[in-house]
Amino acid sequence: MKSLKPTLHTSLSPALLHLYSVSNSIVVIIDVLRATSTIATVLFNGAKCIIPVDSVAECIRLGKQIEGITAGERDGQVAEGLSYGNSPFEYPAEFIKGKTLVLTTTNGTKLLHMALDKGAKKIITGSFPNLSAVCTYLVEQKKNVILGCAAWKDRVNIEDTLFAGAVISRIKDHFDINCDASQMAATMYTDAKEDLYEFLKNKNASHYHRLTNFGLEKDIRYCLSEDAANVLCMYEGGKLVRSVP
Amino acid sequence: MKSLKPTLHTSLSPALLHLYSVSNSIVVIIDVLRATSTIATVLFNGAKCIIPVDSVAECIRLGKQIEGITAGERDGQVAEGLSYGNSPFEYPAEFIKGKTLVLTTTNGTKLLHMALDKGAKKIITGSFPNLSAVCTYLVEQKKNVILGCAAWKDRVNIEDTLFAGAVISRIKDHFDINCDASQMAATMYTDAKEDLYEFLKNKNASHYHRLTNFGLEKDIRYCLSEDAANVLCMYEGGKLVRSVP
Repeated sequence: MKSLKPTLHTSLSPALLHLYSVSNSIVVIIDVLRATSTIATVLFNGAKCIIPVDSVAECIRLGKQIEGITAGERDGQVAEGLSYGNSPFEYPAEFIKGKTLVLTTTNGTKLLHMALDKGAKKIITGSFPNLSAVCTYLVEQKKNVILGCAAWKDRVNIEDTLFAGAVISRIKDHFDINCDASQMAATMYTDAKEDLYEFLKNKNASHYHRLTNFGLEKDIRYCLSEDAANVLCMYEGGKLVRSVP
Repeated sequence: MKSLKPTLHTSLSPALLHLYSVSNSIVVIIDVLRATSTIATVLFNGAKCIIPVDSVAECIRLGKQIEGITAGERDGQVAEGLSYGNSPFEYPAEFIKGKTLVLTTTNGTKLLHMALDKGAKKIITGSFPNLSAVCTYLVEQKKNVILGCAAWKDRVNIEDTLFAGAVISRIKDHFDINCDASQMAATMYTDAKEDLYEFLKNKNASHYHRLTNFGLEKDIRYCLSEDAANVLCMYEGGKLVRSVP
């Protein structure tokens, strides 16, 4: 008998996204360190919206045009010509409330535009700070889901895979999961969940390394905190907005 | 100080192979269920050589031309027009000794030809039946290594990743490993190594499913047996041959 549950797949890298039925699915963009964690934080702290763009030039152009705050990084550091970076701590409520952020990042915004190009039914962003909001939404929608890891320049990474695993471990009973990548993600999350930070450190995760070299341990710890900024971040009309489910 | 050890990377899917420096590395082709397990068995049982080809038509053409044994599968079953399939049990010594096999498979031979096209320095095949031979060779060579998982139609799979993890867990001290995919593979192997068969079953691995539906549990158990056909299988001059280290 064919299962009546919707399907769930995990794409471990943008270079694998084409293998899945994007146009028939809700796509969750996952860029744990740090784009999607920062997106959740910015919207949690009351920003009007975030406009994700895929180049620094476009970020600068649009920032001027709409008088938004330009933000983003390349290779883990503030990109030249932009005002702010990709750290959630740059965006407290007293600064960001009511404002519009124009954001570009190495991997996360690129994947979002790929999903758009492939006709995703609906796009949300996911991170540990808004884990519960993501899970609640996916269960309620009863639609096929693709957990899309932004990875690092197409190379699979541990932290995005762990977030996929965290989602799967919570919502798996509501989905038909015939996907080895999803099983691998959930298995690794089970190993790691006691202390995600120590897991990344012990496994010598490459982006953990990159960020600690920039002195960003505090960012990493925050980006691994479940429900620290628990809002649903939805892509609608070219913008990421805080969605009221 | 820069490490003096060679590097090791794991490519979890043929669609990710281009991310790594193939032309500068030994590439290990991994297609655990069942191509590379069968290759090790065929060479262990005394075949003269195996000629991997990437299409059924080419397999038939070449088989006639050189009076070789045509073998291969598409989607896990014997391909139409070929004499034999992809099961290691089809090739006992009394049948295969001294003969030439012309082989085509869904994923493994495709990846081998990709690695060739990208100018791999040296190509060997890896499977649990020849795990020790692979590890000994890689440590001796002191060259950069890419563990190339054949996956399933570019989708990451559990069994090939587990084999990469098994190799890494044995030889990691000899390499500089800055690769999250390798860490993920080694972590999963640690979880699974007590009973690889049960792990595949419990994780509902998609190819485990596909093969058990064909009644091939015995094949799976054999393909997960470490050192059951412990020979080094090397690609040389268009053929896979048993190499004497």
